[in-house]
Amino acid sequence: MEKKISLDDILGMDRSYRRNLMNTISGFKSANLIGTISHRGVPNVAIFNSVVHIGATPPCLGFVLRPLTVPRQTYHNIKARGYFTINVVAESFYEKAHQTSAKYDEETSEFEACGLSPQYTKSHPAPYVQESPLKLGLQFEEEHHITANGTILIVGRVVEALVDSQLIGEDGHVFLDKAGAVSVGGLDSYYTARPLGRMPYARPGKAE
Amino acid sequence: MEKKISLDDILGMDRSYRRNLMNTISGFKSANLIGTISHRGVPNVAIFNSVVHIGATPPCLGFVLRPLTVPRQTYHNIKARGYFTINVVAESFYEKAHQTSAKYDEETSEFEACGLSPQYTKSHPAPYVQESPLKLGLQFEEEHHITANGTILIVGRVVEALVDSQLIGEDGHVFLDKAGAVSVGGLDSYYTARPLGRMPYARPGKAE
Repeated sequence: MEKKISLDDILGMDRSYRRNLMNTISGFKSANLIGTISHRGVPNVAIFNSVVHIGATPPCLGFVLRPLTVPRQTYHNIKARGYFTINVVAESFYEKAHQTSAKYDEETSEFEACGLSPQYTKSHPAPYVQESPLKLGLQFEEEHHITANGTILIVGRVVEALVDSQLIGEDGHVFLDKAGAVSVGGLDSYYTARPLGRMPYARPGKAE
Repeated sequence: MEKKISLDDILGMDRSYRRNLMNTISGFKSANLIGTISHRGVPNVAIFNSVVHIGATPPCLGFVLRPLTVPRQTYHNIKARGYFTINVVAESFYEKAHQTSAKYDEETSEFEACGLSPQYTKSHPAPYVQESPLKLGLQFEEEHHITANGTILIVGRVVEALVDSQLIGEDGHVFLDKAGAVSVGGLDSYYTARPLGRMPYARPGKAE
């Protein structure tokens, strides 16, 4: 039976319970690895569930970073170098991708520690994740600090993409299920997808 | 075979091809209905694929709105009334949810036009979607205008939730597959989920 949970109920919850609830209750999220490289040349990769589409023209994506209350290598590297990559996590390596959420020191490459392979192009300084079927190279564009809790929205402009053209339909649509892409519930539950259907462009008066 | 697509390639694409590619290539997204109510009391509901977790303490979520180059009822209502709801789309009504993306005039309630039912509580002015298994009531907190393309990040504070307690585990984790939640690829492809696994909290040295 449906139950109402108030803000007081939420604030009165155990911290870990509230974190699980608030991370899962709004639905499935994108599972992505974000690749960066430090000023000293150490490649970094970390998993995020907050990548969001910003726009197609110019091609922009964003993601939310946790507050800077402790050192954040991803943030630091993006600010220092100006580039990052967004890589879709697939079923074939989701356990390795999850392992990047462990706290490694700044001299350790999570690629090596987690069994993932950095991949470079001549035209983009940040490392891609070779195992990923859908890779995007971005240039840092802007950042927005969320007053409510100190998190940061990072926005980047897509400057290149690495993808098997067989995964792209005639109209530009990427077949995420064919790519083996996974989605994530909260911070730790991974899912593959079963297609329900592709819907036509909606117009008024066409509802049942 | 993997192929490199440059920024020039992307900017040279047909508009609709680029929109499809850029909306799908970063992976599955959350499928959510956002409910608002106008100053005149007309309930509005629209589908979004850009809901993002902002934080658990205080409980905050955000979503990205397209530029204000045409009237945006969702934005207008949130600014006028200060409240909105986020509702997870489930398999049982995803076609109706998709239909809310049609352009209705401001005197038409998409609830009625699309066959969805508004649901109200005494403690929150904006309408929930009765059909949704996971409903969140939010108070507008802040907005950030993205310089790159004029889109807007709206951030709200969760002030109540409506959910069947059988969908919540002992540790606060919501079973999205049990709820029938769907994810979306781009603007029009809907998917259900098959659980791959729930991973333990990652610590250094625990990789395979």
